[in-house]
Amino acid sequence: MTHTPLGPGPEFDLVRELVARYGASAIGIGDDASPVQVPAGEQLFVSTDVAVEDVHFRASWLTADEIGYRSTMAALSDLAAMAVMPRGIVIALTLPSSWRAKATAIADGIARAARACNAPIIGGDLSDGPALSLAITVLGSSRTPLRRSGARVGDAVWVTGRLGGPATALASFLAGGQPLGETRARFAAPQARIRESVWLAAHSATACIDISDGLAADLGHVAVASGVRIALDLDRILCLPGVSGADAAGSAEEYEIVVTGAAALDVAAFEAEFNIPLTQVGSVIAGAAGVEAHSAGAAVAVPPGFNHFAR
Amino acid sequence: MTHTPLGPGPEFDLVRELVARYGASAIGIGDDASPVQVPAGEQLFVSTDVAVEDVHFRASWLTADEIGYRSTMAALSDLAAMAVMPRGIVIALTLPSSWRAKATAIADGIARAARACNAPIIGGDLSDGPALSLAITVLGSSRTPLRRSGARVGDAVWVTGRLGGPATALASFLAGGQPLGETRARFAAPQARIRESVWLAAHSATACIDISDGLAADLGHVAVASGVRIALDLDRILCLPGVSGADAAGSAEEYEIVVTGAAALDVAAFEAEFNIPLTQVGSVIAGAAGVEAHSAGAAVAVPPGFNHFAR
Repeated sequence: MTHTPLGPGPEFDLVRELVARYGASAIGIGDDASPVQVPAGEQLFVSTDVAVEDVHFRASWLTADEIGYRSTMAALSDLAAMAVMPRGIVIALTLPSSWRAKATAIADGIARAARACNAPIIGGDLSDGPALSLAITVLGSSRTPLRRSGARVGDAVWVTGRLGGPATALASFLAGGQPLGETRARFAAPQARIRESVWLAAHSATACIDISDGLAADLGHVAVASGVRIALDLDRILCLPGVSGADAAGSAEEYEIVVTGAAALDVAAFEAEFNIPLTQVGSVIAGAAGVEAHSAGAAVAVPPGFNHFAR
Repeated sequence: MTHTPLGPGPEFDLVRELVARYGASAIGIGDDASPVQVPAGEQLFVSTDVAVEDVHFRASWLTADEIGYRSTMAALSDLAAMAVMPRGIVIALTLPSSWRAKATAIADGIARAARACNAPIIGGDLSDGPALSLAITVLGSSRTPLRRSGARVGDAVWVTGRLGGPATALASFLAGGQPLGETRARFAAPQARIRESVWLAAHSATACIDISDGLAADLGHVAVASGVRIALDLDRILCLPGVSGADAAGSAEEYEIVVTGAAALDVAAFEAEFNIPLTQVGSVIAGAAGVEAHSAGAAVAVPPGFNHFAR
């Protein structure tokens, strides 16, 4: 589908520059609203996620390309959280003049994330403002979405990946350092687990959420929404080197997913398909809605989640 | 549809407060992504629009309720621009701590705009940040959307309402004054012309756009997208008192709509239905794609549009 030609003016020149960087990922840009293609029989879902300079990232931590990539992937992760396939991305970009020279690098990162998830970029808005901000709205569809409210007593609790990277990276950044290797990559280059959650939805998963607030906090959302109790074993969490289970359970912005489902889930098939670990870290039990944590066989404090408003 | 229960924490306490103010307008809040109901056989559209403090408004100009209302109505106006009925609103709210006490008043204004357009509020995101910002994404659907690209040689050009209010209000605000009456209302309390554009789509309209960049500039978008020339007669524009046709044609953020369509369009039926004026201000002619302006029978300069990046 071709774009609608844009009129003259410097704002539209910048839009043309950005759309050129989106390349084949951009579809149908240029009218007041953008059409979204939803396969017949599928339910449409929408989610919006904002990334603000000096709240969600600092300019000294990430390249402009990484800022675009990470912000887009964080938004797409909300579709992974429901086992929903992406159908469109719209981006409200607030671009201070001091960022103007890096606009195309930000667009490159947005396009990289969109391509990685096979998600078309279908529209956006552009504004001046006091800080770089990306408000990214994602649309997706599914016949069999997973909700937070589907967990049932007797389910096992599974988590993807190795946790603790983003919290460790953030601690290093905040201390003035530059994290390295896998630790930095887990913060700067997350991967929304969309194909993984769609697979899990087809293999007995009953509820899903992404770990954007931290494993323990997000399991709390599942527990409240499902009206169940979740027992989390901190010792079973697969962590990056040097990270404790408690730290990993409180590490936010992981963009891994946690699902509830059958204890007999075929872990080997999952790991063969996606080449990332899937680990049972707890179980859904009867009791008051909420999370309880255990370590070395004893009850321990539930690691707190991350909250931008609590800082 | 009930909301998914939210977990504990101050961010979610604030979300609960906002959702309470949205009242019956809020539907299905609380999961990672929100379902959108699209009538069978209709095409879905999405648009996003950001309103940033000190770029699109100043705190001294509008009440918090008006900021919420105006930002939401500006976003909904992009659906009016395509004759699309609203199906959902998602709001990424960046709320500095200095605005925390006014969060519920902002939510009241958002809800007021949503109710006026019969648009459900289905999701959002909340962030700290250096300036108040509302990135509002609207979803809508239609069997017969109007596009910018539909104008044909021989069409008449019609505009709703009386123009010039927002530009006059803005000039007054920027001079340190407080505009009054209809002039202030056209800036602070716009009404997205959704029902009007849907009616026009059913009554021979071929292309539509809302006047968010100014009548002349937005006709330029229609002309480029349609590959036609548009002759605009500044003397025929219905203006608020004290506003010239040239000023009215350059007045941005009007949120009125301009359509192309049959010269025989039933204006009396439109005005009886909606109680606002519909005025023919020009015609679509053969020639190079673009806009030409006339006044007192002579060619005059085309009034420039408004551009946040050009200030």
